[in-house]
Amino acid sequence: METIHVTTKSKEYDILIANGLLQQLGRIISQVWSKRKVLIITDTNVAPHYLRGVTEQIQSAGFSAASLTVPAGESSKSWQVLQQTITACAANQLSRTDGIIALGGGVIGDLAGLTASLWLRGISLIQIPTSLLAQVDSSVGGKTAIDIPSGKNLVGTFYQPDLVVIDPDTLTTLPSRVTVEGYGEVVKCAAMKGGIFWNLVQQVQNPADIPAHANELILHSIRFKADVVSQDEREGNLRRLLNFGHTIGHGIELAAHGRLFHGEAVAVGTFQICRQFERLGLTAPGTSDQVGRALQAVGLPLTDSLLGTPAMFAAMRHDKKVRKGRLTFVYLKQIGQPAFYPVDVTQLETWLQFDNNDGK
Amino acid sequence: METIHVTTKSKEYDILIANGLLQQLGRIISQVWSKRKVLIITDTNVAPHYLRGVTEQIQSAGFSAASLTVPAGESSKSWQVLQQTITACAANQLSRTDGIIALGGGVIGDLAGLTASLWLRGISLIQIPTSLLAQVDSSVGGKTAIDIPSGKNLVGTFYQPDLVVIDPDTLTTLPSRVTVEGYGEVVKCAAMKGGIFWNLVQQVQNPADIPAHANELILHSIRFKADVVSQDEREGNLRRLLNFGHTIGHGIELAAHGRLFHGEAVAVGTFQICRQFERLGLTAPGTSDQVGRALQAVGLPLTDSLLGTPAMFAAMRHDKKVRKGRLTFVYLKQIGQPAFYPVDVTQLETWLQFDNNDGK
Repeated sequence: METIHVTTKSKEYDILIANGLLQQLGRIISQVWSKRKVLIITDTNVAPHYLRGVTEQIQSAGFSAASLTVPAGESSKSWQVLQQTITACAANQLSRTDGIIALGGGVIGDLAGLTASLWLRGISLIQIPTSLLAQVDSSVGGKTAIDIPSGKNLVGTFYQPDLVVIDPDTLTTLPSRVTVEGYGEVVKCAAMKGGIFWNLVQQVQNPADIPAHANELILHSIRFKADVVSQDEREGNLRRLLNFGHTIGHGIELAAHGRLFHGEAVAVGTFQICRQFERLGLTAPGTSDQVGRALQAVGLPLTDSLLGTPAMFAAMRHDKKVRKGRLTFVYLKQIGQPAFYPVDVTQLETWLQFDNNDGK
Repeated sequence: METIHVTTKSKEYDILIANGLLQQLGRIISQVWSKRKVLIITDTNVAPHYLRGVTEQIQSAGFSAASLTVPAGESSKSWQVLQQTITACAANQLSRTDGIIALGGGVIGDLAGLTASLWLRGISLIQIPTSLLAQVDSSVGGKTAIDIPSGKNLVGTFYQPDLVVIDPDTLTTLPSRVTVEGYGEVVKCAAMKGGIFWNLVQQVQNPADIPAHANELILHSIRFKADVVSQDEREGNLRRLLNFGHTIGHGIELAAHGRLFHGEAVAVGTFQICRQFERLGLTAPGTSDQVGRALQAVGLPLTDSLLGTPAMFAAMRHDKKVRKGRLTFVYLKQIGQPAFYPVDVTQLETWLQFDNNDGK
């Protein structure tokens, strides 16, 4: 079993990674939580596979368990479903010494994490991310959120769990497109880290190679993110590295209204930002080709018809990371050397130039 | 001007107390905030008195100002109104470097504080409490909340402001009952602190003495609370001192369904818990009489028909401060010497005994 220890200003916790961890959950959770009442929050995709097993595990370890299953999909990151999760906390009379387990992908991590941070002004939380994207992305950093009509993730908190349990066996029950989108985040991290991690990514030549290398890919991704987050919990400076590929990515993801998965939009954003900065002479020649090959190997997109459209620029201008009228792009000097570059939001249209050959 | 510096694990900030501060707000806020967009959240009682002046002050200092006025009263601490305040953040396109000002009593402090903690996972906040209760109670400690059908303050965060501005002149525009209820919290603090603070309370012989001594009463109350909160931000142990009078108080406040103001219920709870512990021989004889005289001087109640009823006990058992099946009462060994006493919630009925002569 791999253990990554995360230290933030507000809390320290471990991320455990190993195949078969879900079958040892009772013992594992007993090591961080005293006996208490536990509310498991999961969704309609995940519940049929894991809810019964997880419930039995924690009950056999002496915990009292209740569960709430919400509809699968981004639409559950809403005021309405948040009120349902809070109502479940009340109905189960969770006290300040009880806890919530988030069992599912990124949506469940965000929703259950926000619920845990709000109920009685914060109760204990364990994250069990079951998708590759949630395992490498949202399980580190303590971000929680729901969406509102004005945009994604606009309402939320920073709230650290007591433990993150990652069992890569869960990837076997996911549709291929869902695992592949998570790999977009892996490539993003690997391109910034370089070295052994980037070499590992070269070994992934088709989608089937992702589960085969899952443990290492997850471990390297989380270690990279945990290092960054440990040094900067609240997106002051260093943490903004994790926005690599996300600035253009969020723009087209929002404008695509659900057609693109998050990791797919990030793949496009990661490749395109490399192209832009290579054109400016700030990124070493050939870097975008390397990044593009890694993404295309598993079928991730490098371009999209929304690139350069007014809809994309409008969405970018509303990015919650706009500070004092500027968006800070993360780019690569070369593989393994990320850097920052701020751009005035009023100049995005003239500054970003897309041509029809980008990635095609 | 009096300045109290509060240090918590997550933030340091100042509380400023002086008559006429609202007329100097632009200058004051400029000392803690760089120029930014500001959303003022207030209510229908406060807006007619202060919204225009506050807006002009901060605009004259170079800030951009917008405002949202919500209905006065506890009913605004709801999911529905929280969604309205969040929608106002979106409509005004508040970015992470913008800020929220809470201008009003405890309801506004709780609601606007929660809004600031959730919007974009937290933006900057300044509290301008305008009622005595908010000035002495909710302005220190960073508690934010809304109510849900299951109970008061069950959904919220701990979120510290950048600054608290207290202008006791605002008390002159409040109904007498509202100022008197805030004084219930003052007596609660003074009884735990003793010494000069308790002597000061002896000088308040009728409601008109409250505004006359407002600056000192507020200063001493906040200093006491700030000392406690600085040492324990998240209600681990010491902070539970602030629950003095609140355990019985919350029980009858909830069971009274709005008939009793919070500070009135706390007054009853403070006196009654002194009576209970005096009867047990844990509180020095005569202490409850001293506390009772201080509360009665301004017309605060010492007893209520709900004391000892099933409705009161049911509400107490659902107190969110129940931990591992126990409620921890705060009592006084004598004036100036608070202590803790845990009671199993299943034994509340046998343990608390009220007779008809209590305080009558």
